[in-house]
Amino acid sequence: MDLINVFEYEALAQTRMDPACWDFYQGGSDDEVTLRANRTAFERIRLRPRVLVDVSASALDMRTTVLGTAVSMPILIAPTALHCMAHPEGECATAQAAGKAGTLMVASTVSTRTLEEIAKAASGPLWFQLYIYPSLQVAERLVRRAEAAGYRAIVLTVDLPYVGNRERDKRHNVTIPPAPFRDANFEGVEKVGLELVMLTWESLSWLRSITSLPILLKGILTAEDALLALEHGVAGIIVSNHGGRQLDTALASIEALPEIIEAVAGRCEVYIDGGIRRGTDILKALALGARAVLVGRPVLWGLAASGAEGAYHVLEILRKELELAMALSGRPTLSSIDRTLLKM
Amino acid sequence: MDLINVFEYEALAQTRMDPACWDFYQGGSDDEVTLRANRTAFERIRLRPRVLVDVSASALDMRTTVLGTAVSMPILIAPTALHCMAHPEGECATAQAAGKAGTLMVASTVSTRTLEEIAKAASGPLWFQLYIYPSLQVAERLVRRAEAAGYRAIVLTVDLPYVGNRERDKRHNVTIPPAPFRDANFEGVEKVGLELVMLTWESLSWLRSITSLPILLKGILTAEDALLALEHGVAGIIVSNHGGRQLDTALASIEALPEIIEAVAGRCEVYIDGGIRRGTDILKALALGARAVLVGRPVLWGLAASGAEGAYHVLEILRKELELAMALSGRPTLSSIDRTLLKM
Amino acid sequence: MDLINVFEYEALAQTRMDPACWDFYQGGSDDEVTLRANRTAFERIRLRPRVLVDVSASALDMRTTVLGTAVSMPILIAPTALHCMAHPEGECATAQAAGKAGTLMVASTVSTRTLEEIAKAASGPLWFQLYIYPSLQVAERLVRRAEAAGYRAIVLTVDLPYVGNRERDKRHNVTIPPAPFRDANFEGVEKVGLELVMLTWESLSWLRSITSLPILLKGILTAEDALLALEHGVAGIIVSNHGGRQLDTALASIEALPEIIEAVAGRCEVYIDGGIRRGTDILKALALGARAVLVGRPVLWGLAASGAEGAYHVLEILRKELELAMALSGRPTLSSIDRTLLKM
Amino acid sequence: MDLINVFEYEALAQTRMDPACWDFYQGGSDDEVTLRANRTAFERIRLRPRVLVDVSASALDMRTTVLGTAVSMPILIAPTALHCMAHPEGECATAQAAGKAGTLMVASTVSTRTLEEIAKAASGPLWFQLYIYPSLQVAERLVRRAEAAGYRAIVLTVDLPYVGNRERDKRHNVTIPPAPFRDANFEGVEKVGLELVMLTWESLSWLRSITSLPILLKGILTAEDALLALEHGVAGIIVSNHGGRQLDTALASIEALPEIIEAVAGRCEVYIDGGIRRGTDILKALALGARAVLVGRPVLWGLAASGAEGAYHVLEILRKELELAMALSGRPTLSSIDRTLLKM
Repeated sequence: MDLINVFEYEALAQTRMDPACWDFYQGGSDDEVTLRANRTAFERIRLRPRVLVDVSASALDMRTTVLGTAVSMPILIAPTALHCMAHPEGECATAQAAGKAGTLMVASTVSTRTLEEIAKAASGPLWFQLYIYPSLQVAERLVRRAEAAGYRAIVLTVDLPYVGNRERDKRHNVTIPPAPFRDANFEGVEKVGLELVMLTWESLSWLRSITSLPILLKGILTAEDALLALEHGVAGIIVSNHGGRQLDTALASIEALPEIIEAVAGRCEVYIDGGIRRGTDILKALALGARAVLVGRPVLWGLAASGAEGAYHVLEILRKELELAMALSGRPTLSSIDRTLLKM
Repeated sequence: MDLINVFEYEALAQTRMDPACWDFYQGGSDDEVTLRANRTAFERIRLRPRVLVDVSASALDMRTTVLGTAVSMPILIAPTALHCMAHPEGECATAQAAGKAGTLMVASTVSTRTLEEIAKAASGPLWFQLYIYPSLQVAERLVRRAEAAGYRAIVLTVDLPYVGNRERDKRHNVTIPPAPFRDANFEGVEKVGLELVMLTWESLSWLRSITSLPILLKGILTAEDALLALEHGVAGIIVSNHGGRQLDTALASIEALPEIIEAVAGRCEVYIDGGIRRGTDILKALALGARAVLVGRPVLWGLAASGAEGAYHVLEILRKELELAMALSGRPTLSSIDRTLLKM
Repeated sequence: MDLINVFEYEALAQTRMDPACWDFYQGGSDDEVTLRANRTAFERIRLRPRVLVDVSASALDMRTTVLGTAVSMPILIAPTALHCMAHPEGECATAQAAGKAGTLMVASTVSTRTLEEIAKAASGPLWFQLYIYPSLQVAERLVRRAEAAGYRAIVLTVDLPYVGNRERDKRHNVTIPPAPFRDANFEGVEKVGLELVMLTWESLSWLRSITSLPILLKGILTAEDALLALEHGVAGIIVSNHGGRQLDTALASIEALPEIIEAVAGRCEVYIDGGIRRGTDILKALALGARAVLVGRPVLWGLAASGAEGAYHVLEILRKELELAMALSGRPTLSSIDRTLLKM
Repeated sequence: MDLINVFEYEALAQTRMDPACWDFYQGGSDDEVTLRANRTAFERIRLRPRVLVDVSASALDMRTTVLGTAVSMPILIAPTALHCMAHPEGECATAQAAGKAGTLMVASTVSTRTLEEIAKAASGPLWFQLYIYPSLQVAERLVRRAEAAGYRAIVLTVDLPYVGNRERDKRHNVTIPPAPFRDANFEGVEKVGLELVMLTWESLSWLRSITSLPILLKGILTAEDALLALEHGVAGIIVSNHGGRQLDTALASIEALPEIIEAVAGRCEVYIDGGIRRGTDILKALALGARAVLVGRPVLWGLAASGAEGAYHVLEILRKELELAMALSGRPTLSSIDRTLLKM
């Protein structure tokens, strides 16, 4: 029997993975308060469905653009690390899944396939998530390689000046990447662990000086920082608490989204990740003003369960759930989804 | 010993039914958030009982009319599918229970006895719940048959442009109706599954053009749609989330009722279904302005437990609980039940 | 080892009692939502203790008067039925406990010792709780007997026009009183079960016409009824939901108290029962304006555990807990306890 | 493997301690509502992290002063009783841990090492927590000894006119100190149990008359008492509910902090203890205006696990967690931590 929702993929994936790798994917920081809040905050929001709207197949349309790039749905693949822990083909399989689903993948700096290998495997658009370490020079080289490989934007992660206190990893004594996995993008680079370059708002000027690609900031949780991001000319913001893996008891992503949407007031695109497991979650994020959502762990579960096919199936489950949620709420198009859909 | 509340019927019914059929009745969509919310929302509302009111047997009166039809109590039987899964006599037994209890049954389009058989078995008033499929022509024929059989109103279900994501049914690989049950009203009709005709507000004009029966819309959850329903001349609204089986995380019915009552402002009758298991639930719905409630699953539990007699007994349990709740809250008549009874 | 709180008495009592009798004492109505709410509502209220107040033994004083009668503490014994189910000496033992504790007992109409036997056993003041059945004549006779026996007030229960839906009793098939217990106050009276006379506000005129004893109403939960009670000249109000045994999902007593205190505005004494298990509960009720609290089940637990001595010990536990709570909150006297003690 | 958080120390400590001693440390009063609330109240507060702030090691700075004394972090050791129950070296080991961590210890009157022994073992600053019993004379002698031994402030506990109702201790039949432990500071003093002198605001004048050390009051939970404390010239306030061991259902410490900060308006230093187990808890207390936090039970867990080294490690865990929380929330210095960090 086919798996019917992402939670079934989660259960299956756990049986397929090494426990330490599994916990690396699943874990949050400290007491995992924010990790859980990412889910419960979605469940608390109530939907106000409208009826007798034409939601026939021909009327339903979830195609959109993300920074001008057409995608088949407002569901993107969030950057996550070390896909070979889930499946031997790693990020290449994920990229195939994204392309087959007609959507975009954000490839992580910390990957087990090189960004070039990923780009070669991909049939859809790619963005490159950037961690800046161990030096600006190395990071610049990564950006240049991403440009050359056809990546269309740089997603700068801004919520990880240090790695969060992930106690599951401490208990497993995990190193990143754990043996025998490659840190593919850094082969030949002299590195000292995850010695990140300390970023500040000024770092954005540097980044803009070395690339003409549009820049998104990932990890914004406040209106104040959203406004600063705008001032610094970002093309987009990804509201995120890093999947509950950085500052514990930080706001759930969906709790932070409204103040950011209000502050940004349409001046750049706003995305969100964190806790998205159902089509109705996506619908709620869109209703609050997100342009699209990014999905992390569920894609890894699909990958662990059955490689590119599994990751693709997870995306299709979410697409179908979103489609049904749009239909059942009387919102056949993305433009018809607004705040009146919600009772918070 | 007699069963003393509807939950005991629920427990007994489960032992009498095929697991797939049981799950078809019991299940909701996705994570069943709305299914549970339908109950918990009732339990959160507190009652403010009045005392030293004459609530003697002669003063207590819960008789009312629904669209002009007299019923012995403000408790109707909600339309539910495929009663033969619960008991061989199916909808005919349910109709007998309704008549014996002096109340009205809403017969479902998706039934295991024909609407004519149901009408023949019934001793009380009937409404006909309409799904429009596989074509307007077939639906028109159903309406004509309902008129001919003496049904007094058409209850158009408006919250099912597609079937919700009912995962229990997917796991059981359920078809509707599951073998060996008849899809009685469609015998001889060429159908392709549940290929529903897409309804819009314009569909109401068509429906009104083919019948002079009053029309109720079932599945309204917002003030906006209640106002549109009024504009389109409906006789009644049934506030419903389809028993938590359509859009998950939609508002609990009782959460949606107040805004609809306020919008309608008495211009049509408003009913509610979803989560009603106790007399105090009914009292709360009436206090918020519902004309009557419709009860679905509990009637099926009674049917599964002991056929017409069980269904009747479930109705009598609810009647007695409502009567006692009216007495203990100092509200002997329906007109004495108002918002001051509630602390929300 | 001595039992140290009322919950330990509860646990011990259960081991000493017949299950049906136990459930008769413990049970609430329907789903016991209000029964539980009576406790949780107390736990949700936070205390704001003051410090550096003289709370030495000589400063602490919880003596008060109830309708002019001096008692050693603002803790009275609530009327409860059928004490012989807990202990052979029944209500006589309870009366002894009350007297020894220097407080007042409200004797129930439904008792296993006659009101005269109780009065004879008592060394402290008594009030008589009145149910009016099977006729006004019989009730008048009871009132006359209570007057003759020295009872100082009539507590008319107004929230029981019918017995609530107590499902535990239905499952045990309990009759009241269960064999072999006496319905002591009605010996020689022709009765038909609990055929209560229907009371209305007019019934108060009758009651006042037959006795000059002060009258309290037990079972008021709304400001509206509190005002009506005042208009009808009552001497006191007991805020109560009958221990969660009548209308389920009715307000918790402590939730109802504030609006009643506000409405009454000092024009009569206001008492409360329901869910009181700790000294801090009593402190909260006093801070909201109650003159005293009435304790029901815990006294029965003491009685079941070890007769008069157990009931007395329960009262002393509560007194000591209240005393400590007054001391630790910097409120040595009843007059120093006010709303500023609470954060609700 | 090293223990990685204070909860692991808690688990280990329990295996190392006598159950009665363990319960003496762990227990709260009555139903331990406040004990639990001290934790849950922290978890409910959400953090709003800022990004792209320079939080490099050189920018991070949590050094502060407490009443003018420099400490390496805003984490002090709360006064707790009877450390020899955790480890043979008792308070001397704790003092060594504090000094090694560069912070301050508040030594308790009720200790198993004399205040002079503690002072001798200490390499960091000390405050002396004072209980006044069995007489002012004895207390004055203690204060003189504390002055002579170099203690820098007197922390007068004001929330213990009587010992709270700690039922775990009653069940274990605990005496204080339990045999074979010394009540070190009272050797040679004639005492009658914990016969405390009743304190009032006037007691502060006496205390000020006998010492020129600054005085802090520990156990303030209201704005009213904070203002009185200011009027009486205190140098500091410690917001505390005595670890949930005195008045049950009293406010959680962190719930009380805002009104006290507002009332004090910077006119004295405000500290807090109760429920602090994570760096993010400390961050929240600082954001609400606390100058530093005091940690009680976790230090005892460290002590029980491995003496001075364990207590030190617990402090270092909290320091590292606070440091990471400051970094991940974009607040590298104490002065950058303010209310905008919180969503309550």
